[in-house]
Amino acid sequence: MSLLVVGSMTFDAIETPFDKVDKIIGGAATYIAWSASNFTEPIKQVSVIGGDFPQEEIDKLKSRGVDFEGVEIKKDEKSFFWSGKYHMDMNSRDTLVTELNVLEHFNPQLPESYKDCEFVMLGNLVPAVQMSVIKQMNQRPKLIAMDTMNFWMDVAMDDLKETISMVDVLMINDSEARQLSGEYSLVKAATKIQAMGPRFLIIKKGEHGALLFEGRKVFFAPALPLEDVFDPTGAGDTFAGGFIGHIARTKDISFENMKNAIIVGSAMASFCVEKFGPNRLQEISKADISSRIHEFVELVNFEIDLVN
Amino acid sequence: MSLLVVGSMTFDAIETPFDKVDKIIGGAATYIAWSASNFTEPIKQVSVIGGDFPQEEIDKLKSRGVDFEGVEIKKDEKSFFWSGKYHMDMNSRDTLVTELNVLEHFNPQLPESYKDCEFVMLGNLVPAVQMSVIKQMNQRPKLIAMDTMNFWMDVAMDDLKETISMVDVLMINDSEARQLSGEYSLVKAATKIQAMGPRFLIIKKGEHGALLFEGRKVFFAPALPLEDVFDPTGAGDTFAGGFIGHIARTKDISFENMKNAIIVGSAMASFCVEKFGPNRLQEISKADISSRIHEFVELVNFEIDLVN
Repeated sequence: MSLLVVGSMTFDAIETPFDKVDKIIGGAATYIAWSASNFTEPIKQVSVIGGDFPQEEIDKLKSRGVDFEGVEIKKDEKSFFWSGKYHMDMNSRDTLVTELNVLEHFNPQLPESYKDCEFVMLGNLVPAVQMSVIKQMNQRPKLIAMDTMNFWMDVAMDDLKETISMVDVLMINDSEARQLSGEYSLVKAATKIQAMGPRFLIIKKGEHGALLFEGRKVFFAPALPLEDVFDPTGAGDTFAGGFIGHIARTKDISFENMKNAIIVGSAMASFCVEKFGPNRLQEISKADISSRIHEFVELVNFEIDLVN
Repeated sequence: MSLLVVGSMTFDAIETPFDKVDKIIGGAATYIAWSASNFTEPIKQVSVIGGDFPQEEIDKLKSRGVDFEGVEIKKDEKSFFWSGKYHMDMNSRDTLVTELNVLEHFNPQLPESYKDCEFVMLGNLVPAVQMSVIKQMNQRPKLIAMDTMNFWMDVAMDDLKETISMVDVLMINDSEARQLSGEYSLVKAATKIQAMGPRFLIIKKGEHGALLFEGRKVFFAPALPLEDVFDPTGAGDTFAGGFIGHIARTKDISFENMKNAIIVGSAMASFCVEKFGPNRLQEISKADISSRIHEFVELVNFEIDLVN
């Protein structure tokens, strides 16, 4: 009855127009676990880290119900390192450094206790690794959600399409949806991408919110208008974590409940960007989350008398 | 108890990636009148046209309850002409030709029957002309809404700020909000712009929807995801027309009703972009509008159990 999460656990160096940090933990699986653990446990984590990954950060995640049996620790190697710099609009960034380190030969072997998870969140990672995790499951999970990015469309499109064909929910951003489908209109892009396999498609538009498609049905979740976006790193992963955490908590994969999952994901992402790395996610309470979700309800709620 | 609309009535030549049209009627006041006339009448129109403006188009508007007493017809001159070309993303366009013609010395004199209107929609126009209309009113209208654009920030900022200080609702797009306020964050921009006078600020984000601010309150209305945007010309004016039309119909200027007005405006704009110029607006029925507004309700409606 639990959630399996696969993804990177890393060190990041981040520079924004407002501030910089030389070394902070990051990675898709780190953000997903911090976000999802507000809603469900245990979280069966699948990742690889070096001997340099702080024990304190591992302990904090364990105390939140994150199971490290599936996290390989290569004591003599270094964790993945990424360094990036954001521009003024915070929607675009330059990657300055990428050191794969432990991720270079990552070939996860799922512990037996992981193989019956009902819900799977494939964080952004090499598509072949995401696929390998699916193939190791004892039976088809109730829901497999997948995040990916344009990089894999450039270097591993065949593997990517095969993996996409195996999942229920694909999460990508608007430019990635256009690249993957060859369609500029997001409505047309959604139709083409759903034909590749996923029943549900989530198109993330950053500060402009997110769209959920299932067949001809569409739902729009706004992003919360914020005074400041301090650091967008991990916002997409945090969104994914809130989304899958809500699904795992409610065990309801209807379109109606997916809407709520997207609102929860958007609320979590709105916290993520308030401080560097996962710092803000590590300090918020359930009351903070409820209050933030209520802000989303207020943001879009209206009662209209239709024109006669 | 009626609505006063001021703005241009023009000929446009439009080129999009899909098609082109050499001469079609346009102008802010044309779109506003077509849109608003679904909800309220009479509409006291203030504009100036040349002898070349088609009588048939005038008659069609008159049959919708648009009063032409305040529309000056300069028989021996030509109507304003604008020609523009859209790029693939439909969010940016190049102006190819601007011929002011009758608009060059436009100095509207309001008919007596116009001076007691409760609701005023100042379409995008020279700020000094917008201001002159306000000053000719017998008493302060119940609500004055104003549309403008970056061009006036570049060439007439003082007049623009003075006019803005006199209105209740300002409608601008996101880049204009940033230019006017000097703030990148739209939340901070909204605070600064409200301090310039308007109690309500609407920030239009095109395909990404619109934000309504009143003090610390904020509401977000999405744009309908469309298969195709055929021609965005007039979408902002059509939004303004739907907005003010709903307000004039309901006579309710509360924040709650402004939300509905923005949904109505967004629904009207989603029709506008489906065909060239005001063509689509000229053919839709009230049933079409109700159905479209229902799509907006479906698009954002969710029922969430807050996290315990």
